[in-house]
Amino acid sequence: MSQQKEQVHFRLWNQRNRRLTPYVPGEQPRVKNLIKLNTNENPYSPAPGVEAVLRTYDPDSLRRYPDRESTELAIALAKRLNVSTSQLFFGNGSDELLAMAFQGFFPERTENKGVLLMPEITYTFYPVYARLFDIEIKQIPMRDDFTIDPAPFCEPSGGVVIANPNAPTGISLSAEDIEVIVSADPNRLVLIDEAYVDFGGDSAIYLVNKYDNVMVLHTFSKSRSLAGMRLGYAVAAEPLIEGLRRIRDSINSFTVDSLTQAVGKASIEDESYFQKSLADLIETRDRTSQQLKDLGFTVLPSETNFVFAKHEDFTGEDIYLHLRKHNILVRFFNTPKLNEFVRITIGLPEDMQTLVDCLSDYIDRK
Amino acid sequence: MSQQKEQVHFRLWNQRNRRLTPYVPGEQPRVKNLIKLNTNENPYSPAPGVEAVLRTYDPDSLRRYPDRESTELAIALAKRLNVSTSQLFFGNGSDELLAMAFQGFFPERTENKGVLLMPEITYTFYPVYARLFDIEIKQIPMRDDFTIDPAPFCEPSGGVVIANPNAPTGISLSAEDIEVIVSADPNRLVLIDEAYVDFGGDSAIYLVNKYDNVMVLHTFSKSRSLAGMRLGYAVAAEPLIEGLRRIRDSINSFTVDSLTQAVGKASIEDESYFQKSLADLIETRDRTSQQLKDLGFTVLPSETNFVFAKHEDFTGEDIYLHLRKHNILVRFFNTPKLNEFVRITIGLPEDMQTLVDCLSDYIDRK
Repeated sequence: MSQQKEQVHFRLWNQRNRRLTPYVPGEQPRVKNLIKLNTNENPYSPAPGVEAVLRTYDPDSLRRYPDRESTELAIALAKRLNVSTSQLFFGNGSDELLAMAFQGFFPERTENKGVLLMPEITYTFYPVYARLFDIEIKQIPMRDDFTIDPAPFCEPSGGVVIANPNAPTGISLSAEDIEVIVSADPNRLVLIDEAYVDFGGDSAIYLVNKYDNVMVLHTFSKSRSLAGMRLGYAVAAEPLIEGLRRIRDSINSFTVDSLTQAVGKASIEDESYFQKSLADLIETRDRTSQQLKDLGFTVLPSETNFVFAKHEDFTGEDIYLHLRKHNILVRFFNTPKLNEFVRITIGLPEDMQTLVDCLSDYIDRK
Repeated sequence: MSQQKEQVHFRLWNQRNRRLTPYVPGEQPRVKNLIKLNTNENPYSPAPGVEAVLRTYDPDSLRRYPDRESTELAIALAKRLNVSTSQLFFGNGSDELLAMAFQGFFPERTENKGVLLMPEITYTFYPVYARLFDIEIKQIPMRDDFTIDPAPFCEPSGGVVIANPNAPTGISLSAEDIEVIVSADPNRLVLIDEAYVDFGGDSAIYLVNKYDNVMVLHTFSKSRSLAGMRLGYAVAAEPLIEGLRRIRDSINSFTVDSLTQAVGKASIEDESYFQKSLADLIETRDRTSQQLKDLGFTVLPSETNFVFAKHEDFTGEDIYLHLRKHNILVRFFNTPKLNEFVRITIGLPEDMQTLVDCLSDYIDRK
């Protein structure tokens, strides 16, 4: 469970530091025999080519600074995505790219150029960035079924950020709806965070060739099983990529290390392994969703590697604590609209069966 | 040669982005047969244990997010430095940590709490950070011999940043002088960037147990031959470490990947290899300095892995261009006080001999 400790401010923290409310990621307990379904990590290994890179990489080359533009990785990825390498930019996970985009594009409060729009329920890092970079935000209410109505995002604003598919709901907007939002106003950035898109969502990447006010972010942490390596990328028109480069080169010229570039390239180059592991995961997700429904759960329609589920007889915390007691870790968000739910990452088929059995026992006992 | 292109501002760049003047690192040409002495990379391989990590690392563990606190690396390093793990914080190279320290500790212009003091000649990334984070700076003139007078740094200010040894001069301040600056005012941070300290400088790390207003930064990029892996660390009292953590966790919860943590630990654990490669490099540096002096160069006394040298018959650019023509790349800074000099990274003994021979020919021809 996330909780914020009461913070005493140290005399050498500046004004900016004092106003922060840092993001609290899901726990990463280093214990054995735990079924860890709380941070949307992938249960399958990275592509076999990743191991080959580790086994053959020349350690002497680590003496040198990395290639700032991740050229070889960019060439491999550009080909796969059907964009130009100049429309790609790599970061230390997509969180770093989110931070750079907030820092470099959304207007600061003092600019008086409108507020940043985001869904009321979304990735909880967005308000953290807004606070750090002094960006005023407006959280747009969702429909009762947790779907997003595109209309309010078309209103004049200083920018838009949407996770698509959304987290922690798992629900997608169509690329057509995204286009409606992007085309509504060319004078603000629409930032689409597609961290989970490979699990069934509708990517907006093709829009970057048509609009210069949209940026799409992807990560290697979820669908490519490389959370431990820290790699994400942005796809956008060149002036936006140049804007990211200006921010990066004012902070840290080299944020993607040489080995990560090589590992990322190996992952990209094995499309068949990628598709197979996605298909397996989606099959497990859909089966698990059905099993949970059979137990009386309401499960939101997921196009991600997790499901967001609630049961009318229990609170989210009840379920979280019961599973925790049986060495199964899921994510519980202790906030008003989300506290009926738990977010369950899709793991291996056998782990999901253990989870379903454990919940079945719990419900029967009641 | 570094050059800034005239920048046209894109309509979606915010105010902050528009005011930036990004840092321009030394070139990283990917060509063969070049003797690359321009970015202070180490000519020796990383410790043999680094290769062992690559060959045995379990790729499946990359599915998981990294340990945010780099615990095992911290334990190894704390033991070596004789500090507590709670006084350590790791980043994606020391540049990332510099950025976080500027962002979280030095007062913003609007706070009216004094300006940030730095030497007039120093790491050119510092003014870039100041511009990004809207920190007013005052550059303190150096003595004619490029040494730093500690007295003006004891004056009231919003903070101090000093590279020690300094770059690109290579000259050190004693730890006693640093202590004088730190103790002059407990209400401002003194940030000591010891990127090059292992090559002979005097570390201020022991001060962190005595003062809570000093932070020391180290990197694995230079003395540990791991520029390609991106790893640096801060040593400071706990409230400063907590301040860095607040900044990090408002940007990117995981900036040091799992493999980098393992590689860093392997490097730390091989003290004898480390000492041997340092001693070899220092021997080459001192010999090269003497050879350059014998050719009529003025060479500043270096406690780093580079030398800063000038010759009265040539400009820095003359020397840079001559060497470039002979496939030797050194660094030339095209600014008023530095343009008489070139900065030459110390490479392998044979490469330094090639450089000396090439300069000897040039001088003789004149």
